[in-house]
Amino acid sequence: MLKVAVIGASGYTGVELLRLLVGHPEVEISCITSRQHEGLPINQAFPSLSGFCELVCEALDVTAIAQRVDLVFTALPHKSAMEVIPDFLAAGCKVVDLSADYRLKDCSVYEQWYQKHTSPDLLAEAVYGLPELFRELIGSARLVANPGCYPTSVILGLAPLLKNDLIDLTTLIIDSKSGASGAGRGVKQGSLYCEVNEGFKAYAVASHRHTPEIEQTLSILAGAAVQVSFTPHLLPINRGILSTMYASLKAAKSTADLLDIYRQAYAEEPFVRVMPGNELPNVAYVRGTNFCDVGLVSDERTGRVIVTSAIDNLVKGAAGQAVQNMNLLYGFKEQLGLGIVPLFP
Amino acid sequence: MLKVAVIGASGYTGVELLRLLVGHPEVEISCITSRQHEGLPINQAFPSLSGFCELVCEALDVTAIAQRVDLVFTALPHKSAMEVIPDFLAAGCKVVDLSADYRLKDCSVYEQWYQKHTSPDLLAEAVYGLPELFRELIGSARLVANPGCYPTSVILGLAPLLKNDLIDLTTLIIDSKSGASGAGRGVKQGSLYCEVNEGFKAYAVASHRHTPEIEQTLSILAGAAVQVSFTPHLLPINRGILSTMYASLKAAKSTADLLDIYRQAYAEEPFVRVMPGNELPNVAYVRGTNFCDVGLVSDERTGRVIVTSAIDNLVKGAAGQAVQNMNLLYGFKEQLGLGIVPLFP
Amino acid sequence: MLKVAVIGASGYTGVELLRLLVGHPEVEISCITSRQHEGLPINQAFPSLSGFCELVCEALDVTAIAQRVDLVFTALPHKSAMEVIPDFLAAGCKVVDLSADYRLKDCSVYEQWYQKHTSPDLLAEAVYGLPELFRELIGSARLVANPGCYPTSVILGLAPLLKNDLIDLTTLIIDSKSGASGAGRGVKQGSLYCEVNEGFKAYAVASHRHTPEIEQTLSILAGAAVQVSFTPHLLPINRGILSTMYASLKAAKSTADLLDIYRQAYAEEPFVRVMPGNELPNVAYVRGTNFCDVGLVSDERTGRVIVTSAIDNLVKGAAGQAVQNMNLLYGFKEQLGLGIVPLFP
Amino acid sequence: MLKVAVIGASGYTGVELLRLLVGHPEVEISCITSRQHEGLPINQAFPSLSGFCELVCEALDVTAIAQRVDLVFTALPHKSAMEVIPDFLAAGCKVVDLSADYRLKDCSVYEQWYQKHTSPDLLAEAVYGLPELFRELIGSARLVANPGCYPTSVILGLAPLLKNDLIDLTTLIIDSKSGASGAGRGVKQGSLYCEVNEGFKAYAVASHRHTPEIEQTLSILAGAAVQVSFTPHLLPINRGILSTMYASLKAAKSTADLLDIYRQAYAEEPFVRVMPGNELPNVAYVRGTNFCDVGLVSDERTGRVIVTSAIDNLVKGAAGQAVQNMNLLYGFKEQLGLGIVPLFP
Repeated sequence: MLKVAVIGASGYTGVELLRLLVGHPEVEISCITSRQHEGLPINQAFPSLSGFCELVCEALDVTAIAQRVDLVFTALPHKSAMEVIPDFLAAGCKVVDLSADYRLKDCSVYEQWYQKHTSPDLLAEAVYGLPELFRELIGSARLVANPGCYPTSVILGLAPLLKNDLIDLTTLIIDSKSGASGAGRGVKQGSLYCEVNEGFKAYAVASHRHTPEIEQTLSILAGAAVQVSFTPHLLPINRGILSTMYASLKAAKSTADLLDIYRQAYAEEPFVRVMPGNELPNVAYVRGTNFCDVGLVSDERTGRVIVTSAIDNLVKGAAGQAVQNMNLLYGFKEQLGLGIVPLFP
Repeated sequence: MLKVAVIGASGYTGVELLRLLVGHPEVEISCITSRQHEGLPINQAFPSLSGFCELVCEALDVTAIAQRVDLVFTALPHKSAMEVIPDFLAAGCKVVDLSADYRLKDCSVYEQWYQKHTSPDLLAEAVYGLPELFRELIGSARLVANPGCYPTSVILGLAPLLKNDLIDLTTLIIDSKSGASGAGRGVKQGSLYCEVNEGFKAYAVASHRHTPEIEQTLSILAGAAVQVSFTPHLLPINRGILSTMYASLKAAKSTADLLDIYRQAYAEEPFVRVMPGNELPNVAYVRGTNFCDVGLVSDERTGRVIVTSAIDNLVKGAAGQAVQNMNLLYGFKEQLGLGIVPLFP
Repeated sequence: MLKVAVIGASGYTGVELLRLLVGHPEVEISCITSRQHEGLPINQAFPSLSGFCELVCEALDVTAIAQRVDLVFTALPHKSAMEVIPDFLAAGCKVVDLSADYRLKDCSVYEQWYQKHTSPDLLAEAVYGLPELFRELIGSARLVANPGCYPTSVILGLAPLLKNDLIDLTTLIIDSKSGASGAGRGVKQGSLYCEVNEGFKAYAVASHRHTPEIEQTLSILAGAAVQVSFTPHLLPINRGILSTMYASLKAAKSTADLLDIYRQAYAEEPFVRVMPGNELPNVAYVRGTNFCDVGLVSDERTGRVIVTSAIDNLVKGAAGQAVQNMNLLYGFKEQLGLGIVPLFP
Repeated sequence: MLKVAVIGASGYTGVELLRLLVGHPEVEISCITSRQHEGLPINQAFPSLSGFCELVCEALDVTAIAQRVDLVFTALPHKSAMEVIPDFLAAGCKVVDLSADYRLKDCSVYEQWYQKHTSPDLLAEAVYGLPELFRELIGSARLVANPGCYPTSVILGLAPLLKNDLIDLTTLIIDSKSGASGAGRGVKQGSLYCEVNEGFKAYAVASHRHTPEIEQTLSILAGAAVQVSFTPHLLPINRGILSTMYASLKAAKSTADLLDIYRQAYAEEPFVRVMPGNELPNVAYVRGTNFCDVGLVSDERTGRVIVTSAIDNLVKGAAGQAVQNMNLLYGFKEQLGLGIVPLFP
């Protein structure tokens, strides 16, 4: 059994990791940490876990933990993550990091959007953990930078267009909408029920930190620098991201033709479902699962293609993708522990 | 592999059966029927099922279906169910019926609350499928009457009090609240999003058809006729029932003492979780699972005990319990296919 | 124009007071205070108010404020309220207090459920501001203790039964459900969107502080000591309380007879609507308004009456009732500023 | 008093008209019609209206109604509207039509997106009822075509950019999100609570019927043919539309500069609020009101401006704008009956 630690277990990403890991046949959760709940069993913080995981939350002692586990999932805020990851690596652990700290290859870009990086030397080594694009690299990595939730939905939604050079790169517009769990479990007035419920708004327009992450990977796919407009919105639902993406087609292509290209691109992918017929994705159809559903329409009037993609931000957008990366790291079947049927309604 | 049919697969209970059955290691879904979607693959009605179940919905031809399957789940409205179940039985199938048609032992009570019964002879044979109370009988049944959603939450919440003769039976008051999926997928104005969202109301006060079902089983537990006040309410959530139950204690007992009695009563039950400490159940903690969470408070001021119990109405209140009954019918491990971790948040 | 101050304007009760007061033809809002937003215009905290109220939040300086206003609304937490109210009164202001500090007549009961009272001498003078019961007293008061949200819904729902001596007082059970704004705008993990949404639970069972307030007024109505079981629940909606109340009838009475008694009792009341026919209240039908809707069913099987009442907890349960009390205090028409049509859907 | 009829009073738009009209000081509601509720008092269909409007729903008899009223609001589906409007006009009534039947000037465009038009001669006379653009024309109209909900949010959000020739017209992309009341009160499976709640999806991509309506008015503003990509989405809220709009700026302009242009453009408008500072609109801030809130960001990286605008689809997007048009038609103050403070939370 693979021994793992979940660092930061009492956030929404942490508890989602536990939900997935307790059912994984090759994994033993050896350690969980939480500053807020130190000394308490995790099912006191999350009664949903009663009967599945009743481990006591520990303090974050890197040395002690590194001796007990093979793999560490860091579900910490950015900055906090890079304060401990180098030590876990030095102590011989592999790390799947769910923060943003090792996602950007260019340190100056990181420092422009976040803050000073304290272990820039690791940026080159870290592998961006989007299996649909970088499966081979992930398999042999020591440090996997688990992608952000928005970038996952965007990149999977656009990859076939970029790989096949079908769109005018200067026209990319991305309008994304995320459920409230994306803001985490920290207590902020803006996350209160009455502030979110029956409301809807854009936020961080033209300034969201996932922008450079999106552009970095789209640029790799396109083989050229890509710049996008990216606008996130806050949805009054618990889980789910829907991204609506617009680009001008270089040459006219019908919806059916484009869907064929997508079906071919994702034919072997266990977690990408191209919607049948003229159906479009709904976040409700992927709830609780590691799927990314993709649909599109070619608009002959305007010459644009409109793609929508849906994920569960806590699963394919965070914990599920982290487990998928773990499976790749250790040679398990990629779907292991992730064969969950969506919960609808 | 056990071959099963799901009759009425395109309602919320039907699709929930499919969600659970596609992951069951001993079951093959051989046939699904739907009047509304006849001839269409079920994942067109429920894109969530894409990749898991893409069977084409058939018409309901009892003779043809009975030859292909061992077990039939009838997820039909009451009255429609009893129109086909006798024929399935006669053709040699076992049946787990999710309707109300075979739950009441006394035909006259059924006819008072519902309508004329067309196969009253089967009422004596049918076993009430609440495993926590009638596990032995279910194992050897041919026809299992799967309990109603409200009665499941109520009976599991009250059983230890009644079995141990702790309460004044004339004082039982049950205030239940159900999510909107309990009203089914039929199109009715009262089920529209805008009619339910941001609303809350009682309905069918003193007249809900689950009342005699609750009273029948509580009377068995008490060894005496029990009459209750039962008030259902409509909650603006997709899934979940919370029942709040009140009764006067015959003799003073502390919360801790009562919790001990509950913990003992349910010590061996895989799907009943008595809440730890002073925690009280929340429907969010059982979402998507077959659990019934129970908590209680003894109120010294008034001499009453207040019990709350939470289930997912589509799982322990319908499809999950049906699978649990199937497991008992065929000697599978009772938890098989039901080891789902709750989806929180 | 009557000059008023709103102390604690940046909570949900405070902003609701502003919503109602800006449209009141006899009132000028002269001062608002907020510790959190001191120095900022209130419409920065609540952009909904832009164009209606853009006053700058002040610090709470009793002496200075008392010179500028006639009436003070204190929308502070209990304990904080009684720290300033005696000084406002001494300085010649009238006060409508929305906290719990002056609702209980018996200081020892207050101290048992809350904490030490620092101005117990005012308890006798304070008038409990439920106009439907105490209209005359309110008119000549100096300090009005605005009722709690739960007690308002409960007392108006039960008053005709108690006044007419129709029920067995030992059998009263009250099962209430409140929207999330009832927990206020303070940042607490339990108030986060993802903790409340798609959830439902009871809380403070047999220990909620509104219990003695309910019992105090029911006892006055009954002319005898009344003890109740009161169970609050948290509803995933912004606004609204529905209380479901159970009691054994002393003598059989039909639903129609009881409704007649209610219609008579409330015939002259501008803010109590007895539901027509067999309709039952829904919190959605009173949204944004000062109404209390009441309905009931007489259950012949059990000899009990089941009453449900619905209010908007922020209006009739707080700010609206406070404005109604202000109208009585100053001889304005009772409905002035409160003639709002419910927002449905 | 102006005598008005509301044709189709039992839809969400109809009931919203009643909510607004019962409080209008210059209006008497003389007649309401509803096929579904004919012969019943409207407050039986909408208990929220009890005490405000208890008129009995009539059948739609144009001749009889025309004799009793001055102005008719038609809240009917398209096609049904044009079956009665010519007769109301012929009988001397003025009409504010909330359907799409008279919004498009070019009959062939109407027939391409809808169906055969049965009174094309009236298209030239009908005035597009967006007061912020066509105030003068509305004042002297006989038939006002009340704008669609999406077009209202879009046009008000973009007008200052187009009027001032600030953007490249070929780059306009509009991503809109609407609450569920926009789909009306008709019973459809897709409108059920459990289908909408916790879900989010795009629909009618590149094919929504509001597209030509948007393009018609934007073209007038730009003085050139404008073609847009318009994508509507279904939000799990009762009320509200947020439109996010993207366009390339012809020349660089800062956020502050653009906001100044907007503030100037809307300085005299009672119902358009340009958000203060860097705030962005939220549908929650306009709930229940006739406001359109607008905010924007200039993105220097991409040279685009991103505008978001929020309305309540039932008010500024339908009934409120209709009342505003009525006020203009009869020379009342434009805000009369519409001075509602938003309901937050």
